[in-house]
Amino acid sequence: VTGVASLEHAGPADVSFLTHVRHLAAARASRAGALLGPEDVTGMPCPVLRAPAPRLALIELLRLFHPAGGAATGTHPSAVVGDGAAVDPTASVGAFVVIEANAVVGPNARLYPFVYVGAGAEIGESSTLYPHVVVRDGVRIGRRVIIHPGAVLGADGFGYEFDGARHRKIPQIGGVLIEDDVEIGANTTIDRSMVGDTVIRRGTKIDNLVQIAHNVEVGADSIVAAQTGVAGSCRLGQATVLGGQVGIADHVNLGDGVVLAAQSGVMSDLPVSGRYLGTPARPAPLTRRIWVTEAHLPELVRRVRGLERRLEHIERETGHADDAPEPN
Amino acid sequence: VTGVASLEHAGPADVSFLTHVRHLAAARASRAGALLGPEDVTGMPCPVLRAPAPRLALIELLRLFHPAGGAATGTHPSAVVGDGAAVDPTASVGAFVVIEANAVVGPNARLYPFVYVGAGAEIGESSTLYPHVVVRDGVRIGRRVIIHPGAVLGADGFGYEFDGARHRKIPQIGGVLIEDDVEIGANTTIDRSMVGDTVIRRGTKIDNLVQIAHNVEVGADSIVAAQTGVAGSCRLGQATVLGGQVGIADHVNLGDGVVLAAQSGVMSDLPVSGRYLGTPARPAPLTRRIWVTEAHLPELVRRVRGLERRLEHIERETGHADDAPEPN
Amino acid sequence: VTGVASLEHAGPADVSFLTHVRHLAAARASRAGALLGPEDVTGMPCPVLRAPAPRLALIELLRLFHPAGGAATGTHPSAVVGDGAAVDPTASVGAFVVIEANAVVGPNARLYPFVYVGAGAEIGESSTLYPHVVVRDGVRIGRRVIIHPGAVLGADGFGYEFDGARHRKIPQIGGVLIEDDVEIGANTTIDRSMVGDTVIRRGTKIDNLVQIAHNVEVGADSIVAAQTGVAGSCRLGQATVLGGQVGIADHVNLGDGVVLAAQSGVMSDLPVSGRYLGTPARPAPLTRRIWVTEAHLPELVRRVRGLERRLEHIERETGHADDAPEPN
Repeated sequence: VTGVASLEHAGPADVSFLTHVRHLAAARASRAGALLGPEDVTGMPCPVLRAPAPRLALIELLRLFHPAGGAATGTHPSAVVGDGAAVDPTASVGAFVVIEANAVVGPNARLYPFVYVGAGAEIGESSTLYPHVVVRDGVRIGRRVIIHPGAVLGADGFGYEFDGARHRKIPQIGGVLIEDDVEIGANTTIDRSMVGDTVIRRGTKIDNLVQIAHNVEVGADSIVAAQTGVAGSCRLGQATVLGGQVGIADHVNLGDGVVLAAQSGVMSDLPVSGRYLGTPARPAPLTRRIWVTEAHLPELVRRVRGLERRLEHIERETGHADDAPEPN
Repeated sequence: VTGVASLEHAGPADVSFLTHVRHLAAARASRAGALLGPEDVTGMPCPVLRAPAPRLALIELLRLFHPAGGAATGTHPSAVVGDGAAVDPTASVGAFVVIEANAVVGPNARLYPFVYVGAGAEIGESSTLYPHVVVRDGVRIGRRVIIHPGAVLGADGFGYEFDGARHRKIPQIGGVLIEDDVEIGANTTIDRSMVGDTVIRRGTKIDNLVQIAHNVEVGADSIVAAQTGVAGSCRLGQATVLGGQVGIADHVNLGDGVVLAAQSGVMSDLPVSGRYLGTPARPAPLTRRIWVTEAHLPELVRRVRGLERRLEHIERETGHADDAPEPN
Repeated sequence: VTGVASLEHAGPADVSFLTHVRHLAAARASRAGALLGPEDVTGMPCPVLRAPAPRLALIELLRLFHPAGGAATGTHPSAVVGDGAAVDPTASVGAFVVIEANAVVGPNARLYPFVYVGAGAEIGESSTLYPHVVVRDGVRIGRRVIIHPGAVLGADGFGYEFDGARHRKIPQIGGVLIEDDVEIGANTTIDRSMVGDTVIRRGTKIDNLVQIAHNVEVGADSIVAAQTGVAGSCRLGQATVLGGQVGIADHVNLGDGVVLAAQSGVMSDLPVSGRYLGTPARPAPLTRRIWVTEAHLPELVRRVRGLERRLEHIERETGHADDAPEPN
């Protein structure tokens, strides 16, 4: 076999993969030359590579057939490197990169074309910054961090104070700290703080078009899906999971292991681990029950109207109306 | 007349346009020197260009007064073109463009400054890429495609597998395919797949800040408004219309002609053409009825409390309480 | 003291600040060498700088310790400046900036690397454009405007007309006007109009990843938080406040002083100043009452079912059922 392909598209020269039981029929119908699958799978039309955790084995398989391209080390002649900046000789700095004064670029870091590294910023060992990433002054980025195209780290936090006549800008002199093994999606924005740091802890993965406001801390090993917004000064625990388009109001704390379904809106602390859903975010089973019930709301109103009519009738007929005034 | 202007701003030297009946009064009050309007319009204060489809005629009018500026053909001396890249001599390649090895840029394509074209990527004939567009390696773009500033095509899909200790990145070795006559908005992101392609079919128009995740297929002639997000592996039919800030969960299928109103959230398949609204997305008339009813919810609770009080009174007075245990 | 730090992180060499009563305990426990606070504060462990408006005084304090870095005036030799463009000699134009023909860059303006200024565009005095900002042709930007990295001003409005076979693009030949003292967040997009201008009035502050569509007017001194979207032809009054992830449908008018809480969705005019919440946006107290009530919806349905059962029992026992047909 010469490549990896989906069950649907694989041919005799491809290895494919069965990583979810819902694809069992597709696997049986696949034209793949070989298949990666769980240990107990049977009835496949081709040889099966059995693995106790097929999705983890798939990672190795994909790497095997598509090894990461090594970048040429060194700095492209068109790059502009400021006074006092330290670029490790094993780093790869692409065309039209700008590295401002006193910035540091670590060993084996890779900066694609058009990356901007502000004054005094630090890029850790083996980190990759794709084209058009902006790292403003003083932002510190750990090791093995991946930042996708167009992400902006360290823009000013959104802070103003109204003086009676106009909104006056509060200087944002704090920074951004990205710990090791973090991944940040395309066109995502992570703002600097007024003082202190906005922090993304170790191992956390952030998708595209996410907004992380000033002074937020996102705990380690968290997952933040696309278009989610976290307002200023929130504290997210470890291993939190935020679905797409979630919104979290400022100064909210989420406990370790809190899972927010897509489009949830959170306005107050959720200290207890668990799955939450909806705006306002509630325990997921409660929100689901509300959603089922609200679909019958128009009918419920009709039923209440019917009850009122029938009750009035009986009250009249039996002469037993309750004439006490309605309590508040 | 020397230009085109709105009914409100047009003067005697401008031609204006009446394309919606709600602007009839504004048209009658306009100072425009001439007016484009429907065939049956009367009572206008200036000469009228009558057209059976005034909005289509307006397109011609706008083009007439503001012809698209032709770009100088050829490659700006500052651009960096990699080994084996093929740039058609009729293409226009702006300052500081980077075209990596083996990429292809077709006839009459226009690449504005700071465009990045990854290794092996293809830009079709007469396509326009505005400043700061990022096209990562291997992405294929058709003919007459327009990509607005800052859009990112082919960043890694958001895929991880937890190995018990940390989230491990699943290599994203698939691609992105953009068919002919597609338009993609500013700072929109369209991710590459793990295997196979993320596909935007012919004639589809996508607005700003939209997220299209890995392995999605958007059917032909669809409309996707700003800030909408489509999660991984969704299949959207032809001529679907997604309003702004819509969210679609992963693996959801939408049938041809499905219309989702703004801010809708879709968690399961919608195979049948029609207009849907809300989170969860329901047929629009149902969601509107729920919205009307829920505004009276606090009052409904008071009515039910009143019924309970009155019924209790009658039960007491008549001695006819139903003492059977409440069924579950 | 040598710097400014939060109550939590300040040491003896830092001045800290007490700007909200909820931080009183933290202030009492702080190790700060000095404290900025309100005039009536007591019991602090260090000298206190008393100010009638501590948050405004904080602005001065932050500026004092972190004065804005002056940029070198002049144009970096790598910048590309088109024919007829006028760059004031006091402006600072960074590496790889592109200024197209006939554009104007005012006195003391600062353009960071990779900024793109389209043909005929105007950048006012003392405005700052961070890296990767795109200002398309003809866009006019006032004085003291700050535009954060990756923002795109003047991309085409999202306008098409279906001709029976395909969506035909409506040329967008209008412009964008940004008045004085506006701030625009990272990766935000503000589209140009078909005709006329999209306008952001004086003193308005816009956060990251916001979408402002064609022909919108945002009134003076407004606040627009992150990821909010304003659809085409909306008119927002003065001093409006839009929370994060708000969506406003096209052609909606908001009165002066309208405040929309985060994630609100607005589908019709809100002419009266006040606080609105939810989708659809309603006066905030009403939406909060609905949210409280809907959490009890499943219980309410049970209560109505109970009433129906009990009433039927009484009707049977008393022989006083209302047999009139249910009105519609």
